[in-house]
Amino acid sequence: MPEVTRLLADIADVGRDAVRGGWSRPVLSTAELDLRAWFVGEAERRGLDVETDRNGILWAWWNPAGLPLRDAVVTGSHLDSVPGGGEFDGPLGVASALAAVDLLQQRGSSLARPLAVAVFPEEEGSRFGVACLGSRLLTGAIDPDRARGLRDPEGVTLAEAAAAQGFDPSSFGRDDEALARIGCFLELHVEQGRGLVDLGQPVAIGSSILGHGRWRLTFAGQGNHAGTTLMDDRRDPMVAAARAVVAVRDAARARPDARATVGRLRPVPGGTNVIASRVELWLDARHPDDAVTTALVAEIEQLARQIAAEEGCTASLVEESFSVTTVFDEGLRGRIEAVLPNAPLLGTGAGHDAGVLGTVVPTAMLFVRSPDGISHSPEESVEDADAEAGAVALADALESLLT
Amino acid sequence: MPEVTRLLADIADVGRDAVRGGWSRPVLSTAELDLRAWFVGEAERRGLDVETDRNGILWAWWNPAGLPLRDAVVTGSHLDSVPGGGEFDGPLGVASALAAVDLLQQRGSSLARPLAVAVFPEEEGSRFGVACLGSRLLTGAIDPDRARGLRDPEGVTLAEAAAAQGFDPSSFGRDDEALARIGCFLELHVEQGRGLVDLGQPVAIGSSILGHGRWRLTFAGQGNHAGTTLMDDRRDPMVAAARAVVAVRDAARARPDARATVGRLRPVPGGTNVIASRVELWLDARHPDDAVTTALVAEIEQLARQIAAEEGCTASLVEESFSVTTVFDEGLRGRIEAVLPNAPLLGTGAGHDAGVLGTVVPTAMLFVRSPDGISHSPEESVEDADAEAGAVALADALESLLT
Repeated sequence: MPEVTRLLADIADVGRDAVRGGWSRPVLSTAELDLRAWFVGEAERRGLDVETDRNGILWAWWNPAGLPLRDAVVTGSHLDSVPGGGEFDGPLGVASALAAVDLLQQRGSSLARPLAVAVFPEEEGSRFGVACLGSRLLTGAIDPDRARGLRDPEGVTLAEAAAAQGFDPSSFGRDDEALARIGCFLELHVEQGRGLVDLGQPVAIGSSILGHGRWRLTFAGQGNHAGTTLMDDRRDPMVAAARAVVAVRDAARARPDARATVGRLRPVPGGTNVIASRVELWLDARHPDDAVTTALVAEIEQLARQIAAEEGCTASLVEESFSVTTVFDEGLRGRIEAVLPNAPLLGTGAGHDAGVLGTVVPTAMLFVRSPDGISHSPEESVEDADAEAGAVALADALESLLT
Repeated sequence: MPEVTRLLADIADVGRDAVRGGWSRPVLSTAELDLRAWFVGEAERRGLDVETDRNGILWAWWNPAGLPLRDAVVTGSHLDSVPGGGEFDGPLGVASALAAVDLLQQRGSSLARPLAVAVFPEEEGSRFGVACLGSRLLTGAIDPDRARGLRDPEGVTLAEAAAAQGFDPSSFGRDDEALARIGCFLELHVEQGRGLVDLGQPVAIGSSILGHGRWRLTFAGQGNHAGTTLMDDRRDPMVAAARAVVAVRDAARARPDARATVGRLRPVPGGTNVIASRVELWLDARHPDDAVTTALVAEIEQLARQIAAEEGCTASLVEESFSVTTVFDEGLRGRIEAVLPNAPLLGTGAGHDAGVLGTVVPTAMLFVRSPDGISHSPEESVEDADAEAGAVALADALESLLT
């Protein structure tokens, strides 16, 4: 069994979701903590020095020459998942980084720069609502007070959840010392689209990340009894929210290259025989031109208010996060293209920690082919041979950067 | 403080819901078990003998003459709630029954028939999906195998939840011995509408319960990544479900007296950056003419399938429960009208255990005024004087039936 496949098989039982299918590994859950412990064990087995920084990011250092910890080459990804997600989104990048270290150690590569494998927490934002939360804290892209106060669906704050697991939330925030160590960052990730399938290639080099953001839309009406309240007496926020979901889709369709999605929606109180008093839904919107994303969201907000008024309800929209379109560093990309001449260039519609780190250090990405292009689903898949090709490509790119 | 108000104040802190507001007291939760223990204590303080039957229904017997336990007058209601519900829906009937016992004991009424105060579990169906589950089991209106296998939102079966709290789920099912004891059943309940407000009366006698049912509609599509999947490549069940919610409202509006509600909806997996793979929603539909309810639901099913097909998804509909329109027993109603000559007759759109028991024994209801008519909401309210008037009316009606 190839090393990447073996590493992923080791954690295949962690965080299985019997209800949704696939894996649910929210940040600071038992599953995610188990995965962090697994990573520490695997890193130490390879002789790496593991440390956890002020923001809960894991850094596993390979620095046999005892060089000063600066201008390091950093690789890695995340271990948390969306609810009911796939096996590869995140863990493939971490497992490939460990496998690449194995290859470099087998090759006896001598390092002119230190190497670190990093694991970033809450990349998906599936528990506290803000994607790439670890890298946003590290780079100062989110105010630490705001981050500490973020609540999960049960009402637990990030500060409470972190403190309960022995982290010190008061130390969260931009970490110039940690940033000063990073010379460049290279993240390998499963593709989450059909680009490589169409091109007939196992590995691509990332060109850009689509600008994207999350907004919470709240519709408020009048909660009441589903049996005793006449249809004409209702101010039902579920009807308003439903009309808004359709409006979101139609507004995105009207703009070429735009994507807008409602994948999370919660009626309150959520009883079968209860007209909801409030419905919260989350809008995910993306476009290569950030001005178009902004215009799309403004249009959706205006439509939501109009629909809400027609239904006797109110609507309000709050931005939870926004990341501008990122074009990866050309110099770094050129060096990787030189060692991976067959790898095509590919943009992605998915957000990544590499997009956040790209605002402060030269950053690049590698994508590995996914046969059906399905992601954020139990059906996400990667063939063993492609996973191995990805690890070899990563090792080749790292070696070129390190030596 | 009037006795009913005092009794409700005793339990005002049980099951408060900080997230939704109001009270969440699902069956077999700590809150509901605490309320059952409170009821046992209050009943025993009044010298009543409390027993729990095979279906988890509590019976508090007042039978000072040691009469044979048959042809009893039974009153009572439920203590479980919808999520984020009000203070009175259920507990008002239980507290009023206890207060009525106080009044009858103070009056020195001599009983020619035994009296029982009953508490029926899972009246709301808010945990296991089937309303009036206790009375349905008692009367055989639900197959006990089906009931045992019902699952809550966490996937726990009724059998598992009941066994964990020391109940024996193997004994669930129609209980002819318990039924043979009941001569008639009289349930007092908060009105959940504005009928009494409009009539300027504190208490009404129930005439009928609107036929009603619950259906689960599942839309299945293709889960995928919200950023990488083009709008035209999607088979998004959230869009299909949203269109169906609007269709439900429009179909109900087109039929006079019909009510149809979607108050509970769950996307799976439910991530912000994830196109859902499946959306489940629950339809609550009611109409005085059961044939119209059936036709309405058939139309909604057909519309759902059509919408799903247009969105590249599938739709399926499963009936979870259905109760025909109940007209209460005329003879029993006449005897109550004789002692409450000022109380108007009022039908209700809400379901009640009285509707289920009405299929096997003579049954009646009393309704108590609610100033805004709002129910299944933290805003549900009853004025102290009306609660007390309800308890007195209940005592008067019971006394007439018992002596």
